[in-house]
Amino acid sequence: MNIERLHVGPTLSEVAIYQGTVWLAGQVADDASQDIGGQTAQVLAHVDRLLNDAGSDRGRILMCQIFLADLADFPAMNQVWNAWVTPGQTPPRATVQAALANPDWLIEMVVTAARK
Amino acid sequence: MNIERLHVGPTLSEVAIYQGTVWLAGQVADDASQDIGGQTAQVLAHVDRLLNDAGSDRGRILMCQIFLADLADFPAMNQVWNAWVTPGQTPPRATVQAALANPDWLIEMVVTAARK
Amino acid sequence: MNIERLHVGPTLSEVAIYQGTVWLAGQVADDASQDIGGQTAQVLAHVDRLLNDAGSDRGRILMCQIFLADLADFPAMNQVWNAWVTPGQTPPRATVQAALANPDWLIEMVVTAARK
Repeated sequence: MNIERLHVGPTLSEVAIYQGTVWLAGQVADDASQDIGGQTAQVLAHVDRLLNDAGSDRGRILMCQIFLADLADFPAMNQVWNAWVTPGQTPPRATVQAALANPDWLIEMVVTAARK
Repeated sequence: MNIERLHVGPTLSEVAIYQGTVWLAGQVADDASQDIGGQTAQVLAHVDRLLNDAGSDRGRILMCQIFLADLADFPAMNQVWNAWVTPGQTPPRATVQAALANPDWLIEMVVTAARK
Repeated sequence: MNIERLHVGPTLSEVAIYQGTVWLAGQVADDASQDIGGQTAQVLAHVDRLLNDAGSDRGRILMCQIFLADLADFPAMNQVWNAWVTPGQTPPRATVQAALANPDWLIEMVVTAARK
């Protein structure tokens, strides 16, 4: 069985697909000057784009691990998340606090999904 | 291939099942007043119940990511864990420290398993 | 479908294999006196050995979650990582900071891969 990789770089690929399961790299905001609402929206836009590239979508997420730099941002993150998810197809999720590689990043999301 | 979801809420589902693999949301204690032993037992009871709902069980766990609010709780967590796991069917596991969404939560577990 | 487990201990197994997907336990250095470069090399040697035991290899990694005790070690970790990965087959990856179970451990890696 082959592994398909998308957006392949020298350190990591953004996507790996194997047997119908789609593994995404941790997604962060391009514009780290934005607040948690803006960064969450950016991250979810990346997830949408990568899932689309992989032949999946936000209604087919199997698991989402969320790392917040500051748990005080949890309610504001959730507000953007709740408006984004597909009703009836919400994924399992876990959220913990962790410092992220860029001190201006407020959120990183690790998504696993199923291909259509 | 369809995704099956259980305990579906507006923010997350507790379980997603795809191609025989069962993905659980991060599990935490209902009664956060308990110590690490009590919270670990509560979390493992949730895992048992959700895996049963999904047609799996504690002997079929593929990976368990554990987040402890305080690594000083590692030995007491392990004591409850070691008495719970199925001998010969212990899963891969990783344990790190992370602050959790409720400051009274001492442990969160993220379990992936295989259906029977 | 059977689950295959390797290096099975009373608390955890180092490897679980199910439907061609290989799940590794969190890997850390045996010699925790080494610096981040040395510990990263040790961890990657463990990953190589376990993937080989499972019938996979470093070119077939689906996801790698990295926990660093100190994000200041990120560049030195990356240098060892970049020399290790298979060009064109780099995996999705996410790196966050988290305290690890042994205060001398600087890095822990959680790898999921595909069998050959």
